[in-house]
Amino acid sequence: MLRTHTCGQLRPEHIGQSVTLCGWVQKIRDKGGLIWIDLRDRYGITQIILDESYTPTPIVEAARQLGREFVVAVSGKVVERASKNDKIPTGHIEIQAQEINVLNPAKLPPFLIEDETDGGDDIRMKYRYLDLRRGVVRRNLELRHKMAQAVRSYLDSQNFLEVETPVLIKSTPEGARDFVVPSRMQAGEFYALPQSPQTFKQLLMVSGFDRYFQIVKCFRDEDLRADRQPEFTQIDCEMSFITQEDILNTFEGLTRHLFKQIKGIDLESVQRISYDYAMKFYGSDKPDLRFEMKFVELKSPVRYGQELSDLVSGKNFQVFEDAQIVVGICAKGCAEYTRKQLDELTDFVKRPQIGAKGLIYVRYGADGTLKSSVDKFYSEADLKAWAERMGAEPGDLMLVLSGETDKARKQLNELRLEMGNRLGLRDKNKYAVLWVLDFPLLEWNEDENRWFAMHHPFTSPKPEDMQFLETDPGAIRANAYDLVINGVEVGGGSIRIHDRKVQELMFDRLGFTPEEARKQFGFLMEAFEYGAPPHGGIAFGFDRLCSLFGGSDSIRDFIAFPKNNAGRDVMIDTPSPIAEQQLNELAIAVKLPVA
Amino acid sequence: MLRTHTCGQLRPEHIGQSVTLCGWVQKIRDKGGLIWIDLRDRYGITQIILDESYTPTPIVEAARQLGREFVVAVSGKVVERASKNDKIPTGHIEIQAQEINVLNPAKLPPFLIEDETDGGDDIRMKYRYLDLRRGVVRRNLELRHKMAQAVRSYLDSQNFLEVETPVLIKSTPEGARDFVVPSRMQAGEFYALPQSPQTFKQLLMVSGFDRYFQIVKCFRDEDLRADRQPEFTQIDCEMSFITQEDILNTFEGLTRHLFKQIKGIDLESVQRISYDYAMKFYGSDKPDLRFEMKFVELKSPVRYGQELSDLVSGKNFQVFEDAQIVVGICAKGCAEYTRKQLDELTDFVKRPQIGAKGLIYVRYGADGTLKSSVDKFYSEADLKAWAERMGAEPGDLMLVLSGETDKARKQLNELRLEMGNRLGLRDKNKYAVLWVLDFPLLEWNEDENRWFAMHHPFTSPKPEDMQFLETDPGAIRANAYDLVINGVEVGGGSIRIHDRKVQELMFDRLGFTPEEARKQFGFLMEAFEYGAPPHGGIAFGFDRLCSLFGGSDSIRDFIAFPKNNAGRDVMIDTPSPIAEQQLNELAIAVKLPVA
Repeated sequence: MLRTHTCGQLRPEHIGQSVTLCGWVQKIRDKGGLIWIDLRDRYGITQIILDESYTPTPIVEAARQLGREFVVAVSGKVVERASKNDKIPTGHIEIQAQEINVLNPAKLPPFLIEDETDGGDDIRMKYRYLDLRRGVVRRNLELRHKMAQAVRSYLDSQNFLEVETPVLIKSTPEGARDFVVPSRMQAGEFYALPQSPQTFKQLLMVSGFDRYFQIVKCFRDEDLRADRQPEFTQIDCEMSFITQEDILNTFEGLTRHLFKQIKGIDLESVQRISYDYAMKFYGSDKPDLRFEMKFVELKSPVRYGQELSDLVSGKNFQVFEDAQIVVGICAKGCAEYTRKQLDELTDFVKRPQIGAKGLIYVRYGADGTLKSSVDKFYSEADLKAWAERMGAEPGDLMLVLSGETDKARKQLNELRLEMGNRLGLRDKNKYAVLWVLDFPLLEWNEDENRWFAMHHPFTSPKPEDMQFLETDPGAIRANAYDLVINGVEVGGGSIRIHDRKVQELMFDRLGFTPEEARKQFGFLMEAFEYGAPPHGGIAFGFDRLCSLFGGSDSIRDFIAFPKNNAGRDVMIDTPSPIAEQQLNELAIAVKLPVA
Repeated sequence: MLRTHTCGQLRPEHIGQSVTLCGWVQKIRDKGGLIWIDLRDRYGITQIILDESYTPTPIVEAARQLGREFVVAVSGKVVERASKNDKIPTGHIEIQAQEINVLNPAKLPPFLIEDETDGGDDIRMKYRYLDLRRGVVRRNLELRHKMAQAVRSYLDSQNFLEVETPVLIKSTPEGARDFVVPSRMQAGEFYALPQSPQTFKQLLMVSGFDRYFQIVKCFRDEDLRADRQPEFTQIDCEMSFITQEDILNTFEGLTRHLFKQIKGIDLESVQRISYDYAMKFYGSDKPDLRFEMKFVELKSPVRYGQELSDLVSGKNFQVFEDAQIVVGICAKGCAEYTRKQLDELTDFVKRPQIGAKGLIYVRYGADGTLKSSVDKFYSEADLKAWAERMGAEPGDLMLVLSGETDKARKQLNELRLEMGNRLGLRDKNKYAVLWVLDFPLLEWNEDENRWFAMHHPFTSPKPEDMQFLETDPGAIRANAYDLVINGVEVGGGSIRIHDRKVQELMFDRLGFTPEEARKQFGFLMEAFEYGAPPHGGIAFGFDRLCSLFGGSDSIRDFIAFPKNNAGRDVMIDTPSPIAEQQLNELAIAVKLPVA
């Protein structure tokens, strides 16, 4: 090695030793004949000192030529530091430089290489290799490494085998758009990149592999939203001879292991709630349970039965009369919200992406009085009944939305999360982990006017719900489950179909002709005839999981070389045109759409 | 779980317990009122027994309906086995069946699911999921899993961070053909799949990651040979602030760790030889050193100097007179080879893929007589001199080739390996590990009439050889090295260029215009200006490494779902045509070459 130690290694016990360190010049100060250099590498920062009174002049001169981010090798003696720095592990020592070698000079970086940088997103993406030098970014990738190691060692200990499945596979029409790869050897034909290794992991179960996992890149050619990447990483898992309960227990185990290993947290109970429950009480299939603030219905939709009496109808308030549902939340201690704050909340729910028509509020004053934005229609006694049902106490604020059931719930979910933020109930260092169970098998797609698989076409229906297949397909529940942490879906899976006839029926319901089903998934259905075990699995979004553990909202911070929102890598400048000869070899031509 | 134990778990200590096993029917025998079923899962085989005299009749009837590869759950009592089978760990017990549930029936498999199968390559590729049920195949993938775990834990212990690099990158003209991926969002532009993460790992070094690794899929669109796959897996590594010596030591450490962990072998010395030495004495840059049989020159090529006197010229044997080199090997104890055996060897070297014109042999009889195929030209004294130089003793056979230096050496390499096979010197359970060092930096490409980088364009030349840049570029040695095990190159790498000017010079020598170099690799050269540390690395062919450890010549046996020689996955039937709509969205058209 060009060094004897790293920049994070030296301690008082090394005092007196001659050492050589290599690293980047983080900072250099030159004052009163003394020069201090902060030398940085992945492992830490060590202070180098030069003193005109005893350091040889050529070395001092050399040091004065250094700039930020120069790569240097410094040799010298470890000495005790006069003014100790307790903030860094090497803060009790420094190196008296006896030799400085510039291994590579550096141009001035286009932004500050510090945790707090002055660089904007674009410049940091273009110079990603410089952004990665910043401790905050590097630590994210160190966390990712540790998490991958912890996942692998846990699953290995549970008899899971990591098996690599192919990247060059077959394009299938179901789900998101595939990226495709033209084949040169089979002109006119294409591979596709996997959206997930779904069929392969099922085939591994048919092969008797019993327990499979893989940390694997997957690909989706979708229009990118802020926090989506065209390539992303999954922890992909599958097990045989299991029930749903076994999957939940196994991967709750993995989750607990990760929290313990990575965060030092002993996870408390992992709740299990049904999809219907989640939608009814939180308006979301991935509720954030770091705080309660459950929905309370003042008027319930007919579909789920009028379990509770209707507290709002018959008072001539047309908005509620017309509504399928009237539903609210109780914000503890917010009765004194100002007019301005209430207007902000109204504006919030009326934003186009949320789309509520308005917001009803009831202030339950500390003095026991009830004041609402619908005082014209509802007496204090009426409001008292609302408060009772909502568990509101003096000092609380009730916020009520109404309208079409699904829409109103989704809107109230947004408002609930907003109130959680305002009340500081969404602490990034607190974790609420839960399973959401019993997802619907199918969801209706208005655009294409047909049923789609909510999870994917290989998900098994609950046998007791198969009676609804003809009458009410939307009521069929699936053996499907999501793991949700802090309102983020980090994993999802299902018990699979392992019977050819059921799989054929499913493809039929999803609008495949038998010929299409055979062409796309014939190999899987045939495999089911050669002895397929009952099996099921789950996949975790690894980028997302890392960002959660890292306390960040952005998965991009946890990817070494992410693409931007247009799917471009602006650092290497791709995608990019390719040579005509290359196109010819691949038997394809670019055919730009006519403007 | 649907089972209480696996099929490999039960032992005499479980006798008396009620258990449920799940698995596949491996075999069923029905004789004299007794039925034996071998039930198989990944973990082993357990014998199930039914006896008409005490097993309930419905269970007996159910068992008689079973066929091979049916998936069943069997409940019953663990009992001591009358005739113990010491060959399997469960051989001292059996299960008296009390209940049998068919979880899934199976059609008769198209080939035998046993270590020795009757299925040919094609049918086993088509039904790969059945082939994977065979113990021999499954164990290969278990080995692969274990090796990946061992690699990761070793490198983790050495402070390497696993960092995922992108799969959707930029097409570059150097090296093999890229697979490309049309971009939908950037019509007319393409991503490429990485042939290796080379530039990204170098950027990670510029970022200060210090030690990087990744077990990663790579892609090459080359015409496939028997044992090549379009997608393959590398153990990709890079280190900063190191010399070549550090790389060799670190990865010798990894190799030793793998041999110890996986094979229980304490590796003996790892030799280091130069490329020139390897070519001179073994005719190969990846010599199999499980056996010696070094080349001995009877007439040396001029280039490397006539270190040894010429023993063959001036005797009117025109073949040798015209030859640049006359070089042989000594096959111990083969003097009694029959005419037929010698003809076989002659035919072997004359095969078109080897291409020698003929083979000279000298038999050194046990009685001390010397008989050769060139007795007309060389006296017994001449041959004695040959024997002396070649270290031949009575009983040995000398085999001599001649011609153009490089060709003759390559031919003799093939003959040496063939003799190694014939003499049983290439034992699959013996391992000879070595480094080959000091590769040439450049090699001349006759077809394109220009120099190519032998390793890749980022490899640094040895500074002391830079003097040959104008006069003799082929003489420049690189800081490049290969790890060779049993004649197979399992890894290769180099110390990289980390200076923009040197990198520019290299691209220039490789025929890039400055504009081309900037367009393709500008980001890397720019990165070198912002403080790039000295760095180097290595990449191992993981498929190959697994096959070596598994004692197989075929990497395909160690890949779960390999492609055939035409790059097809015959199981899922891909590549395949895609829909017109998909092509339109991607702004490409198929343009088949005119026949």
